[in-house]
Amino acid sequence: MEKTIAVLGGDRRMALLARLLAQDGYPVRTWGLGAFGAEDTPLEEAVCAERIVLPVPLSRGKNLNCTASALPLCGLFALLRAEQSIYAGGVKDADRIAAAEHGLTLTDYLAREELAVRNGVPTAEGAIAAAMAATEVTLCGTPCLVVGFGRIGKLLAHRLRGLGAEVTVSARRLDDLAWIDAFGYRGLHTNRLTGKLGDFRVVFNTVPHTVLSGELLRELPQDCVLIDLASQPGFDRAAAEALGLKCISALGLPGKAAPETAARAIWTTLKKIWEEEA
Amino acid sequence: MEKTIAVLGGDRRMALLARLLAQDGYPVRTWGLGAFGAEDTPLEEAVCAERIVLPVPLSRGKNLNCTASALPLCGLFALLRAEQSIYAGGVKDADRIAAAEHGLTLTDYLAREELAVRNGVPTAEGAIAAAMAATEVTLCGTPCLVVGFGRIGKLLAHRLRGLGAEVTVSARRLDDLAWIDAFGYRGLHTNRLTGKLGDFRVVFNTVPHTVLSGELLRELPQDCVLIDLASQPGFDRAAAEALGLKCISALGLPGKAAPETAARAIWTTLKKIWEEEA
Amino acid sequence: MEKTIAVLGGDRRMALLARLLAQDGYPVRTWGLGAFGAEDTPLEEAVCAERIVLPVPLSRGKNLNCTASALPLCGLFALLRAEQSIYAGGVKDADRIAAAEHGLTLTDYLAREELAVRNGVPTAEGAIAAAMAATEVTLCGTPCLVVGFGRIGKLLAHRLRGLGAEVTVSARRLDDLAWIDAFGYRGLHTNRLTGKLGDFRVVFNTVPHTVLSGELLRELPQDCVLIDLASQPGFDRAAAEALGLKCISALGLPGKAAPETAARAIWTTLKKIWEEEA
Amino acid sequence: MEKTIAVLGGDRRMALLARLLAQDGYPVRTWGLGAFGAEDTPLEEAVCAERIVLPVPLSRGKNLNCTASALPLCGLFALLRAEQSIYAGGVKDADRIAAAEHGLTLTDYLAREELAVRNGVPTAEGAIAAAMAATEVTLCGTPCLVVGFGRIGKLLAHRLRGLGAEVTVSARRLDDLAWIDAFGYRGLHTNRLTGKLGDFRVVFNTVPHTVLSGELLRELPQDCVLIDLASQPGFDRAAAEALGLKCISALGLPGKAAPETAARAIWTTLKKIWEEEA
Repeated sequence: MEKTIAVLGGDRRMALLARLLAQDGYPVRTWGLGAFGAEDTPLEEAVCAERIVLPVPLSRGKNLNCTASALPLCGLFALLRAEQSIYAGGVKDADRIAAAEHGLTLTDYLAREELAVRNGVPTAEGAIAAAMAATEVTLCGTPCLVVGFGRIGKLLAHRLRGLGAEVTVSARRLDDLAWIDAFGYRGLHTNRLTGKLGDFRVVFNTVPHTVLSGELLRELPQDCVLIDLASQPGFDRAAAEALGLKCISALGLPGKAAPETAARAIWTTLKKIWEEEA
Repeated sequence: MEKTIAVLGGDRRMALLARLLAQDGYPVRTWGLGAFGAEDTPLEEAVCAERIVLPVPLSRGKNLNCTASALPLCGLFALLRAEQSIYAGGVKDADRIAAAEHGLTLTDYLAREELAVRNGVPTAEGAIAAAMAATEVTLCGTPCLVVGFGRIGKLLAHRLRGLGAEVTVSARRLDDLAWIDAFGYRGLHTNRLTGKLGDFRVVFNTVPHTVLSGELLRELPQDCVLIDLASQPGFDRAAAEALGLKCISALGLPGKAAPETAARAIWTTLKKIWEEEA
Repeated sequence: MEKTIAVLGGDRRMALLARLLAQDGYPVRTWGLGAFGAEDTPLEEAVCAERIVLPVPLSRGKNLNCTASALPLCGLFALLRAEQSIYAGGVKDADRIAAAEHGLTLTDYLAREELAVRNGVPTAEGAIAAAMAATEVTLCGTPCLVVGFGRIGKLLAHRLRGLGAEVTVSARRLDDLAWIDAFGYRGLHTNRLTGKLGDFRVVFNTVPHTVLSGELLRELPQDCVLIDLASQPGFDRAAAEALGLKCISALGLPGKAAPETAARAIWTTLKKIWEEEA
Repeated sequence: MEKTIAVLGGDRRMALLARLLAQDGYPVRTWGLGAFGAEDTPLEEAVCAERIVLPVPLSRGKNLNCTASALPLCGLFALLRAEQSIYAGGVKDADRIAAAEHGLTLTDYLAREELAVRNGVPTAEGAIAAAMAATEVTLCGTPCLVVGFGRIGKLLAHRLRGLGAEVTVSARRLDDLAWIDAFGYRGLHTNRLTGKLGDFRVVFNTVPHTVLSGELLRELPQDCVLIDLASQPGFDRAAAEALGLKCISALGLPGKAAPETAARAIWTTLKKIWEEEA
C-alpha cells in the first residue's frame, strides 16, 4: 500500500502538487494550503503522515514558508519523527542544522540537477513575460544581454532567439563562449563588458554576484530594463535606480509564473527519489 | 522646409510617434496626448498643421479616439481643410463618408500591408504575454492551437515554436496547410476540428468569424484558455464562459504591448507614404 | 472501383509515386521507370489507363522527360484519347498546344500552389546540402544572402537561421521587407545592394531574372559560392566564373534531393484533384 | 618577435591553419601539406621551428597522420627537441609515451573543452549533410533519433529541429532528460528503447559503445539510415547491414565538412594556449 503523504505550507504550486499526488492515487493530506483550494486537515493530523513534503523555499525567516499561519520551523520539527521521510526544496544550512537537532534528516529535492533544470523553464518564461511587460518595445528586433550561461542563461537565450530578439550572452568560461558561438548568439566575455553596453534595452542577470558595477550601469541607455534572476543581486540596485534604470527582481518565478508546471516538475523528481529509496 | 505635422488623439503610441517625428527634426504639435507625456498645444492651433496624423483606430463611437476629451469626429472634421493631408489608421466606412462630407480625404496608413505586418509583431508578443499570464503552465511543452494562418497566425506560430510549445495550426486553404507542414507545425483543417480539441490548453483565434461553435468549445479541457485576436469574435464568448473556460479578448495589442515598436512602425510607413507623395 | 492509372516517364520520384499509389490499392502501371525499380508494362498497354500521370517537367526538348527511351511527346499524345484524364507537372505552352492539337487537355498539377509549396521544402534542403558541400566553412556563423522572399526564399531563410547562419534576405516589396524584419533576418532592398555584398560567403538566388550584375558580383569575396535556384539565371554565370566565383545551378532538386518526399507531395495533390473532380 | 611555427602533416584544415597563421603575421613553415596548396619546406628545416603544430588525429598507425609521405612518428620525435613547444590534437596514450621516451611533452589542443565544442559544429553539419544525401526524404517532417545528449547530440538536435525534423533524443542521465524536455524534443531513456524505434528514418549515434543491439536494430524500418558519429561504434554494423539498413560511419567530419571553420577553431585555441603560456 502507498505511504501517506502530507504537503505542508508553500504556495499554489504545493497545492497543485498535492492535487497531482491525489489524482495519481496517493493518500494525501495538506495543511496551510487552504487559500489555494486545498482541503486542509489539522496540523496534528497532517504531521503523522509517513512522508512529509515541505515547500520551496523551506523557510521565510524562522517560520515555515506558509501564507496561512506563522509556524516556527523548530515547532514543526518538534512534531516530526526520525522514521518519517522528510522532503524540502532549497534548504538553508541553518534549517538543516535545526532539523538535525531534532534528529531529522531533510532530503532537498531542489538539489537534484534535473529539478533545477525543469524549474529553469518557468523561470525563463517568467523572465520573458517580465521583460515584455516592462518594455515599450517588442523583444523581436531588440538587443538583449543575458549575463551568464548556466541553466537559466541557456534556457533564456534560446527563447529570446525564438522570439526574434538580438541575443548577446556574456560568459567567462572559454567552453561557454564556444557554446554561445555554436548556438549563433553574439558572445561577450563577462570581464570585458566595458564599452559594449550602449545598445541593450534589456539586461537579464543570471549570476549571483555583482557583474554590472556602477560604471558599467552608466553605459546602459536610460530606457534599459534590468531583470535580476539570480539569488544574489547581479548589480547595485540603488545605483541603477539612481541612474533612472528600471529594475525588476524576479525571484520565485516557477511558483508564480507556472505553478502547475512547477508542481509537475517536483512530482517527477519525488517519484524518482521514491523509486531510488525503494 | 519640412511641412508642419499635428498628431491628434490616440494612445501612448501616438505620443511616442510625435516624439520620434520631433527627434527626426520635423515640426510637430500634439493635442490630446498630455496624459502620455506630450506637451499639447490648443486644438485650434494644432489643426492648422499641413499634415494631420490621426490615431489608430480613428474613432471610438462618434468621437475621435482620445483619452483626454470627448471630441466628436465631425467637429474635428469641421476644423480641417481639403488642402491638408490627413492620415488615420483603421478608418471605418462611416467615418470616411463623414470626412468626405466635409470635403476631406483620409489616407488610411493601416491599410498598407507592410504596416499591418509590422503591427503583427507586437500583437503576437502581446498574445504570448497574455497566454503566459492566464495559464498555470509554461508554454514550453504545452499543446497550443492557432486558428488561422494569416499574418497573426504565422507570426504567432513561429514564436510559440520558439518557446517550445507544441504548435498546431488550423487553416482552410490547401496552400496554407502545405506551409504549415513546411514549417513543421501540426496542421488541422479548420472545417474538421471535431474530435481533435481535447488536449489544447491555449487556443489563439485569429479569424474574424465564429470557428469554435458551442459544440467544439465543449471538447476543450476545462482549464483551456481562449485568446481572441480577431476584430470579430472567433467563438461564442458567453457559451465559452458558461463552460468555465477563461476568455481573453486581446485587441489593440500593438499600442498596449509595445507602443514604441508600434510608433516606429507607423513612422516607417508615414515616411514611405510621404516619399511616394513627393 | 478505382480507375486505372499509368505513370509514364520521369525520374525516381515518379517510380516512388507509382509505388505509393499501388500501396494505397490503386491499379497502377508504369512505363519508362524500370531503371528506378518499377516493373514496367509495354507502352501500348500503359497508355490505355483511365488516368495518365506524366512527369515533372513534362518534356525534355521534343521528347517526354524519360531516361529509358526517346519518346517524342507528339508520339505519346497520338496514343492518348480525350476521355482519359491526363496530368503533368510544369507544362510548357508549346506542349499544351501540341496536346490540344490531339484533342487532349493536360491538368498541370505543379500549377497547384500547395504542391509548389511542398516542393519548396526539398528544394530548400537540397540548396543547403549544396552549400554545405561547396563551402569550406560551416553554415553556422557564416553570412549568407538569400535573394528573393518568395516560396523558396522563405523556406530557405528559415532553415539557414535554424542552422545558425547569419541570414540576410533581399526583397523589393515593402511588405516582404516587413516580414523579413518580423522573422528577425537582416533585410536589404534588392535594388540597393551596391556596397553591401563584401561579407557574404554564400549567395542563394531565388528570383528568375538578373539581380547580381557583373558590378555587384565584383563586390563578393573570392571564396563566395553562388547557388542559383531560379528557373532563369539570377546572375551572369560567365562573369561570375571569370571572377573565380564558384557557381552551382541547382534545378530539379525535389526529384534529386528527396524523391520520396517529392512523390508524396504529388500524391497528396493528385488525391485532392481527384476529390475535386469526383 | 613572434616565435617560428611549423605545421607538419594532416589534412586540408592544417594547410588552412598555416595560412591563417601566416595572414596574422606569424612566421610559419609547413611540411607534408603541398597537396593542399601549402608551399612546403624540407622536413629538416621545418622541424627547427620553436613551435611545432601536429595534426588531428596525430597518428595513423605508427606514422604521422600525413597524406604526403609515410613518416614514422618515432622518426619525427627523434628530430625534435625538448625545448620546442609541441602541439597535437587527439593524442593516443601510446604516442604520448613514445614522445616521452624522446624527452618530449605534447600539448593536446583537442583536449581543450572549448575546441571540442567548436569542432562539434562542423561534425553536426556534416552529419546533417550525410543524412540528406543518404535518405530519399527531406529531414523536414521526418522522425529522427539522436542517441546521446553530449556535445554532438546537443548541437545536432538543435539543428535538426531548425530544419523541421521530428526530433527524439535518447539519454540516460535524468538531468539530460530534463534538458531534452526543456528544449522541446521528445525524450527517451537510452536503456528503454525497446518497442519505440519503429518510426525512425534516421538514427544518429553519438555514444562510443553499443546502444543499438541486434534486437533493437530489427525494430527499425528497412529504409532507416544509421549514421555513426562516435569514436567507437554505437551499433553492430554487420548486423545492421545484414538487416539491409544503410550504415554511414562519419568520422573526421570537421576536417572534411568545413576545414576552414575547423582551422579557425584550432587557431582560436592555440592563441589561448599561447596566451596562457606567456
